Amino acid sequence: MVEHVPIVALMANLAPPEAPQMIGLDWGTSSLRAFLIGSDGQVLAERNGSDGIMAVSSDTTDLRGDFSRIAETAAGDWLTSYGPLPMLACGMIGSTQGVAEAGYLELPTDLSAMRGELTTVNLTTGDLHIVPGLQKTPTEATAPDVIRGEETQLLGLLGEEDDEPSTVILPGTHTKWVSCHRQRVTDFTTSMSGELFGLLSTSSILSRLAEPTAGFHSEAFDWGLNVGGDNPSAVTSSIFSARTWALNGRLRAEEINDYLSGMLIGAEVAHQLTVVAESSAPVIVCGTTDLTNRYTRALHRAGRETVNANPRAAATGLFRIAEQSGLVPTKENTHA
Amino acid sequence: MVEHVPIVALMANLAPPEAPQMIGLDWGTSSLRAFLIGSDGQVLAERNGSDGIMAVSSDTTDLRGDFSRIAETAAGDWLTSYGPLPMLACGMIGSTQGVAEAGYLELPTDLSAMRGELTTVNLTTGDLHIVPGLQKTPTEATAPDVIRGEETQLLGLLGEEDDEPSTVILPGTHTKWVSCHRQRVTDFTTSMSGELFGLLSTSSILSRLAEPTAGFHSEAFDWGLNVGGDNPSAVTSSIFSARTWALNGRLRAEEINDYLSGMLIGAEVAHQLTVVAESSAPVIVCGTTDLTNRYTRALHRAGRETVNANPRAAATGLFRIAEQSGLVPTKENTHA
Repeated sequence: MVEHVPIVALMANLAPPEAPQMIGLDWGTSSLRAFLIGSDGQVLAERNGSDGIMAVSSDTTDLRGDFSRIAETAAGDWLTSYGPLPMLACGMIGSTQGVAEAGYLELPTDLSAMRGELTTVNLTTGDLHIVPGLQKTPTEATAPDVIRGEETQLLGLLGEEDDEPSTVILPGTHTKWVSCHRQRVTDFTTSMSGELFGLLSTSSILSRLAEPTAGFHSEAFDWGLNVGGDNPSAVTSSIFSARTWALNGRLRAEEINDYLSGMLIGAEVAHQLTVVAESSAPVIVCGTTDLTNRYTRALHRAGRETVNANPRAAATGLFRIAEQSGLVPTKENTHA
Repeated sequence: MVEHVPIVALMANLAPPEAPQMIGLDWGTSSLRAFLIGSDGQVLAERNGSDGIMAVSSDTTDLRGDFSRIAETAAGDWLTSYGPLPMLACGMIGSTQGVAEAGYLELPTDLSAMRGELTTVNLTTGDLHIVPGLQKTPTEATAPDVIRGEETQLLGLLGEEDDEPSTVILPGTHTKWVSCHRQRVTDFTTSMSGELFGLLSTSSILSRLAEPTAGFHSEAFDWGLNVGGDNPSAVTSSIFSARTWALNGRLRAEEINDYLSGMLIGAEVAHQLTVVAESSAPVIVCGTTDLTNRYTRALHRAGRETVNANPRAAATGLFRIAEQSGLVPTKENTHA
């Protein structure tokens, strides 16, 4: 597990930090983020690692033992230093491939309902409470869909008093587009353009001409945005133009991937805005800096305003659920 | 090279076949089809192998020697048995990754122009004549595009007297949609849905649930056709439904790939028909039995009639070019 020691943790050696209240875990398929959280939800320390649920072999005979060891590595020293703390997790750890199936809340649902639906598993580090996911029942016209982890981010970033419905984008390998009204989730859809980009940029005929670079080639990205956004139904054909423009010489080898990324995100945004355009309110984008930048450019091109959300929304959401479910005292209780 | 010895070749031991006139080679990226062709264009024998141009290492120091050995394996015994015969090839053998760059004809172009633009390379098996490809110059609105090999199939399947413009589909990893009027090619577009299907069905999260089977699951395919065809701009999202319907239990593991195939072909056909719908004439489909079946179902769903073209169109096209360029005597000359 790669550990990034934040400045607040280093400072803890000089002066004791505010007393930690809980440990929050955003435990996904291929990553684990651990948060040490203080009484007002402040993140006192954060660690990011690659011990997602795939780090445990699917034919293990000691599921709880294996996940316990990962929890120990991620947060054992926090427990030693600060005594037993409630541990609350969201994400794929609550799936059938995780430590226990934590169920789903059915749409439409208020995110406050999560407080009463936690699943608890006993690990060597203590009780691990797990947040349920959300699911959408299929109709004749629409497929079923599920999310795990994003529901907690949503609770972390949505207010209780917004009057207009909001659209939230959580970009990633599988980008989630979520429609909400205050903290009530009414709909969501998953887009696979992130995974498509990964496959095309590493394993397709397009990848043979592409030269991966760390930089962001904004002109190539915006060109791709226009191609994908103007004609989203053409995308299975348009992606081939990443090859033909490169052979033609107008698209340089180091620009191919950003052109392709722009095309896929442009097509996705053009389509999704026809589905979720409940209001003209700014679209909330919550992801890594790089992906937030890309989706923001695509949304601005489509004439929509955006708000960049707190990238630690998962920690905030975990703290709110812990408060609402009584795992940690609420501020009101503390001050009473 | 895998050799399928056809019945006509076996019969040659009993009675000499009609005197062969030429050897035709459809020499692509990953495959080589060799045809022994008689005086009226009849295919007297055919061999199919996997020695496409990728079988020759890109860092070879003896390009002609390496390609000569493949030609020797594919047709050496025919040359021994029937004396020197003209050899004419189409496909990626005429690209910069092949034995020589055979150039392109610019759209719009008459396919009869190919006769005057052959490139000749001396191999140990004799002169190899190579057919040029076709290319489309880009505009501000459209990307460049190129084909190699399909131009010869087109010549093999298009008549000189059809009054209505025709649309031809040549399905494959990179499916070509071609607009023609008689033997004049006016436009074409490449779709990557075949390669997308390959990537998604073998390397994506969808592939983890899928159980590959040899059979064709027509209900799952048609379901996918409806999803993709009704909403082609949604395809980056819709493909995720192959996962969620499978988790939901309505899509069985052995049906996932056909559902996905239907969705990609359905989206491609819905989009392309808006681009190439010059006439209501039947769409000509020229491919393997399996792919022809899939595209035919998609076109019928979209209300278009279809014609299944001769799958040996490449051999017919090679013979016509050979006649037109004087590599073999024309029937008129022979009978004169």
